[in-house]
Amino acid sequence: MLLEPDHLLWEDTLRDDLLLEVGEDGVILGAPRKGTAGEVRRLPGRVLLPGLVNAHSHAFQRLIRGCTEYVAAGALADDFWSWRELMYRAAETLTPEEVHASARQVFVEMARAGITTVGEFHYLHHQPDGTPYGEPNLLSAQVVRAAREVGLRVVLLRVAYARAGYQKPANPRQRRFIDPGPDVALEALAALRSEFQGDAAVSVGLAPHSVRAVPAEWLQQFARLPADVPVHMHVAEQPAEIVACTAEHGLRPVELLQQLELLRPQFTAVHGIHLSADEIEALGRARATVCACPSTERNLGDGVVPADALLRAGAHLALGSDSQAHVDLLMELRQLDGHLRLLRLRRAVLDPGLGQPSGLALRLLQLATAGGARSLGLPVGRLAVGAPADFFTVDLDHPSLVGVPPDRLLSGVVFAAERQAVREVAVAGRFIVEEGQHALQEAAVQGFRTVARRVFS
Amino acid sequence: MLLEPDHLLWEDTLRDDLLLEVGEDGVILGAPRKGTAGEVRRLPGRVLLPGLVNAHSHAFQRLIRGCTEYVAAGALADDFWSWRELMYRAAETLTPEEVHASARQVFVEMARAGITTVGEFHYLHHQPDGTPYGEPNLLSAQVVRAAREVGLRVVLLRVAYARAGYQKPANPRQRRFIDPGPDVALEALAALRSEFQGDAAVSVGLAPHSVRAVPAEWLQQFARLPADVPVHMHVAEQPAEIVACTAEHGLRPVELLQQLELLRPQFTAVHGIHLSADEIEALGRARATVCACPSTERNLGDGVVPADALLRAGAHLALGSDSQAHVDLLMELRQLDGHLRLLRLRRAVLDPGLGQPSGLALRLLQLATAGGARSLGLPVGRLAVGAPADFFTVDLDHPSLVGVPPDRLLSGVVFAAERQAVREVAVAGRFIVEEGQHALQEAAVQGFRTVARRVFS
Repeated sequence: MLLEPDHLLWEDTLRDDLLLEVGEDGVILGAPRKGTAGEVRRLPGRVLLPGLVNAHSHAFQRLIRGCTEYVAAGALADDFWSWRELMYRAAETLTPEEVHASARQVFVEMARAGITTVGEFHYLHHQPDGTPYGEPNLLSAQVVRAAREVGLRVVLLRVAYARAGYQKPANPRQRRFIDPGPDVALEALAALRSEFQGDAAVSVGLAPHSVRAVPAEWLQQFARLPADVPVHMHVAEQPAEIVACTAEHGLRPVELLQQLELLRPQFTAVHGIHLSADEIEALGRARATVCACPSTERNLGDGVVPADALLRAGAHLALGSDSQAHVDLLMELRQLDGHLRLLRLRRAVLDPGLGQPSGLALRLLQLATAGGARSLGLPVGRLAVGAPADFFTVDLDHPSLVGVPPDRLLSGVVFAAERQAVREVAVAGRFIVEEGQHALQEAAVQGFRTVARRVFS
Repeated sequence: MLLEPDHLLWEDTLRDDLLLEVGEDGVILGAPRKGTAGEVRRLPGRVLLPGLVNAHSHAFQRLIRGCTEYVAAGALADDFWSWRELMYRAAETLTPEEVHASARQVFVEMARAGITTVGEFHYLHHQPDGTPYGEPNLLSAQVVRAAREVGLRVVLLRVAYARAGYQKPANPRQRRFIDPGPDVALEALAALRSEFQGDAAVSVGLAPHSVRAVPAEWLQQFARLPADVPVHMHVAEQPAEIVACTAEHGLRPVELLQQLELLRPQFTAVHGIHLSADEIEALGRARATVCACPSTERNLGDGVVPADALLRAGAHLALGSDSQAHVDLLMELRQLDGHLRLLRLRRAVLDPGLGQPSGLALRLLQLATAGGARSLGLPVGRLAVGAPADFFTVDLDHPSLVGVPPDRLLSGVVFAAERQAVREVAVAGRFIVEEGQHALQEAAVQGFRTVARRVFS
């Protein structure tokens, strides 16, 4: 298959003279010159870009979108922790079918936003009373099933969750998350890896939830995992976490992870907001990734990821939609740089340097493509020979974008394109979105509406 | 005409039992109970809200959307001032027809975002070489014409511009803005007021550009304007402005405006970011408005409007799309509270207090409706008997919103709805957007593309 968009981001350069050639197996064969003979699918008025990688998602949290900006009568305050209680309420009673329906809705939203890969940080494991399902990975399988139906590539990051927190009494609302020991989490990881071994669109990693929820003894075991297993963990999201970690361990979170030898290229610290200078250096030396989730971090009053300092230190960055308050990774990129602008009181904070055309836009786009792929251990995120043909197109005549001159096109896409400017989306060469529409979108909305009514009734 | 949405924000309360009754003259007659006999237009699956008021717009800046995140080869840095140079480049050569085409494009975008009124802070007055047009208000008239064609209510805020800045040499790129004296600006104001006197959808105010661009002698004259003339002014957007103002006057910007007796209920300080505690108090005592433009202020690295402190002091707030980097006032509301969350490290910063259902969402929505109306001196912004029937609807089944329970619906709209969830928009009872579409949208895109190609060629 030969694809002919107006513009194509080939090996990190925007080209208007190339076709994209995709093999039967969904792998990119090359980028021959326009005019090459063959069966050409024209994509007029489009720019074609590598598919976006959403490195941090909690699919079921789609249920509480727009519901949490609300101080209930009698509540003391609306904060991160009251938000968490509402999130737990949504999590408490979902059936396996409802987990599937919630994930399907938000995965369709992701596909229509140009996302081709999702890293699902999945912590709903057990029945509402805390006992395992007969098939222990039943809920993980529901999420994977939803991703497969929608057509997304998925990395199931199986969460390990031990406790409510240091010296905190058990919270019954966490019953569905908690394993009796680290071995159970590792067994689940092994079972999932085995189950999906033959599926090129599904892979599996481990997600120790946080230093709050996982004690050092568990983390020590997890540090012995092979270096190529992606390990994701919430790190330094809220100041209270730093206080509790220091009280328990005499160390800040990243200091603890360093001591436990968890920092490595396949380690991703999700959030990574409240970091000391030494912790930033440690993440950089380890070539670890920090996954920023700016719209969620703004919504929750978490703070701003010091992405400029992290990049300078040698750390990598990825992006996530996290709580699904919004599903639009281009908007997340704007927020990543934008929030830093508000703190540093200058523009283009993450610009890689002078004299590089579209330098900032390309760098940001790379975070949401190659950066996410690196974090999840996948060979996607870049259009090049031998890579899977995961891509999306943007309509240059969309009202949000029309008028941007060709030499600033990438900047236009990253800084101006509305989510609805996304027109075609393909995973491994298969189109899952055409003209902005996904075949499952109506069914997904209907199924999801039913779940939401049941949960909030 | 009787309108029957599922929900209606009537006198600041969300109701599901009322119709909206609109008279032939476009004025709201009342909200009779559902079931009342008459010619009913059903709007199933919709919530109907007062039209959004965009209190600060520079229409022609739509041309540089997405083009400015760019460090040109040889440039020293990308900052507010280099951004301004690109903006001037767009401003320099526009013909009257091009001014019209640019405004029409962005006004259609506004209409499709639920905006029913725009306050256009208009500073393009003269021919490219600085000499007045034969008809001195020709360019103002182009903007008004575009708003009338699109169907928006418009307040033309005629800018007065005197100079490049305190002790700064004249900048030839400002030739189209500058008047020889304050009397010329006041004459233009009077002529425009007289010209549009009979048009209920057009009104006129004065906009001394900034303390940078307007000296104290001009401002003293403007302070003598009748109290009901809206006066808008850029205030305290960038730290450099505070430094220059203090050097020239020995006073900070708001201190100067207070001394010159410009602060009053019909005064709007656009931006109002770098304010001292005393300046916040002064704006509050005067019951003046601060117009926040969060997406532009983020884009330009300006900083965050201290909206919480301003509201506590008694000041009013309005919202604006300003540079048109984005046109989505609901998104601006999220950013207004969201940027404060990032600074204060807590949620729901502008929540008016405990125990008020949807308190934060309603308060924010009021800023972008009644707040903007107050700033522009118009009786719109609230659905009530005798008010103009300016409103928009949101599709509750839109993927961005589906699942939000009825008791949190307003919160869902304000915090989750994508711009494309806007379905119908009416000004004075006349529908200008139906099913999300505007009759002029294709023509506007085509006309605008031509202008952009000419400007950037």
